[in-house]
Amino acid sequence: MKKITTLIAIFASSSAFANWQALPEVAPSPADNPTTAEKVELGKALYFDPRISSTGTVSCNSCHNVMTGGDDSRATSVGVDGKQGGRSAPTVWNAAFYSTQFWDGRANTLEDQAVGPMTNPVEMGAKDHAAVMSRLKNIPGYKDMFSNAFGNSDMTIDQAAKAIASYERTLITPNSAYDQFVKGNKKALTSEQQQGMKLFAEIGCNSCHSGPAFNGQHGVDIGTPVLMKFPMFNNNAYDKKYDLSADKGREEVTGKKEDANMFRIPTLRNIALTAPYFHNGSVKDLSTAVQVMAKTQLNRDLKQLEVQQIVAFLNSLTGEFPAQSLPRLPGTSGTTLIR
Amino acid sequence: MKKITTLIAIFASSSAFANWQALPEVAPSPADNPTTAEKVELGKALYFDPRISSTGTVSCNSCHNVMTGGDDSRATSVGVDGKQGGRSAPTVWNAAFYSTQFWDGRANTLEDQAVGPMTNPVEMGAKDHAAVMSRLKNIPGYKDMFSNAFGNSDMTIDQAAKAIASYERTLITPNSAYDQFVKGNKKALTSEQQQGMKLFAEIGCNSCHSGPAFNGQHGVDIGTPVLMKFPMFNNNAYDKKYDLSADKGREEVTGKKEDANMFRIPTLRNIALTAPYFHNGSVKDLSTAVQVMAKTQLNRDLKQLEVQQIVAFLNSLTGEFPAQSLPRLPGTSGTTLIR
Repeated sequence: MKKITTLIAIFASSSAFANWQALPEVAPSPADNPTTAEKVELGKALYFDPRISSTGTVSCNSCHNVMTGGDDSRATSVGVDGKQGGRSAPTVWNAAFYSTQFWDGRANTLEDQAVGPMTNPVEMGAKDHAAVMSRLKNIPGYKDMFSNAFGNSDMTIDQAAKAIASYERTLITPNSAYDQFVKGNKKALTSEQQQGMKLFAEIGCNSCHSGPAFNGQHGVDIGTPVLMKFPMFNNNAYDKKYDLSADKGREEVTGKKEDANMFRIPTLRNIALTAPYFHNGSVKDLSTAVQVMAKTQLNRDLKQLEVQQIVAFLNSLTGEFPAQSLPRLPGTSGTTLIR
Repeated sequence: MKKITTLIAIFASSSAFANWQALPEVAPSPADNPTTAEKVELGKALYFDPRISSTGTVSCNSCHNVMTGGDDSRATSVGVDGKQGGRSAPTVWNAAFYSTQFWDGRANTLEDQAVGPMTNPVEMGAKDHAAVMSRLKNIPGYKDMFSNAFGNSDMTIDQAAKAIASYERTLITPNSAYDQFVKGNKKALTSEQQQGMKLFAEIGCNSCHSGPAFNGQHGVDIGTPVLMKFPMFNNNAYDKKYDLSADKGREEVTGKKEDANMFRIPTLRNIALTAPYFHNGSVKDLSTAVQVMAKTQLNRDLKQLEVQQIVAFLNSLTGEFPAQSLPRLPGTSGTTLIR
């Protein structure tokens, strides 16, 4: 199934036009990791626990902040020792609706993704996953939490991954103005937003940004990347101005020339809350991002009014964020694991 | 009132012996900043908002993590760009029961303390408080929150300080095993813990660590530092091993020789959760910390059993942490303030 890639997005374009879909309120979970309250509870603690990082300063939530749009408002994120990554942190909200994870689709599942940053030297900086689990095993309270979640206290990295992914599958933002609109409340969108919605489809934004999450990945098997070349057209000033082509995207994973500048199609859900934009976070505001996308992907120069209308529509994709309780992280009585 | 300092702690010792006190469930608030729900809500958002820092990566909660013992499990904290501070982050839990703030008592109030790290170049790194407030003013949702809290939308640094302090005054951990014991439940402490409690008073730990918060500051006017020299005795191996005398403490604030190595007496509430220990975080475990304190402050060599008993007692000071909801931080629609 790995070879479908961009074709899906292209085939999807015509049908998606007339097929506006609301966001599901529940994300499907894989057969080998059904979502349970116990896994979600453990996963949330792990998600917020900075002790997973070598320095004790970086948690999943540091860069994928659920108190905001699910990212960190930065072009690129800061990991241990002030090190910076090369790509902009994608939002964790609605990540369950992706068919693959990371900008280059290099992880098949949320489970696979969750353990990646742990050992990335510029993110959480752990020597290896054994080091992560060794640290967690030295936090007594986690033993019971793993046991409650998995029926044993093996405390493996796979269990940690499953728990974090289970928590992430609860991070869904339904009931945006757009969702209310497509469910029949015709007053949910302003006329400007409705104009923007029409334009979004007419000019072809939903060739890629289709389906309930606006990421072209609805109905695509998990593990199948849905990618698009970005920039598609580079005969314009934007490519140079925002250094869009420098990052080779998928090619850096596969080594194949045909994967150059191929990136996963990002969701547009809550897009108004996840500035700055693009894989390199080079564009600070949404209006500019819309202009850049129209030019680089559709070779189209939008008028100012059209940009305004599309931005108004994109604002209607901001959903309701479920209230979150703060986890209490289990302690290490009378000692610390961080030095 | 600024000159009382250590005398209070010394006078307190004899009476404190027979005067075990439970932790109040509510902290007093100053006349010019009565605690209100609206201020607490605003203060909590500010407390968790990393956008206060220059890089957008460091919030109050980064170093004073309310999901744990209220600190960061590190010897010294990490601020913007991976920079490290010189002293160990004190816990935010029960900070309302201090008569002054910081290890050297250089801030009179929680309000004064709250704004210090914002402009510290190795902590949150803002150029000045105007820069902090300028950023907050560019986050539209904060305008209403300030208005709700203060009746106007001036959005001053003083208002931000008052709000953060108001939130911090809610961070109290009552009903520890110790509290239950002193309220009459004689089964709340094990016999080992009761032995430790007795020993704690007999050898003189509560010369300084007296009162409900075990910080010698009960009944002391806010703004009056309660300090003690540490180490008091340096004719032992610990001073060198843990580099205890290097930090001149209060002298660095006042420039006075008599303030050399004078530090605020820290609370022992939740001490089992706030390793590593001391102003420089040099001691990793609580047993060693107890031995060091007995030797450097009381010139006493504790037997292993005595250490165990005192540690058991200190474990009884871990309280109940009130459940916290995660704030939703107001957004900046379609743009970011961080670059």
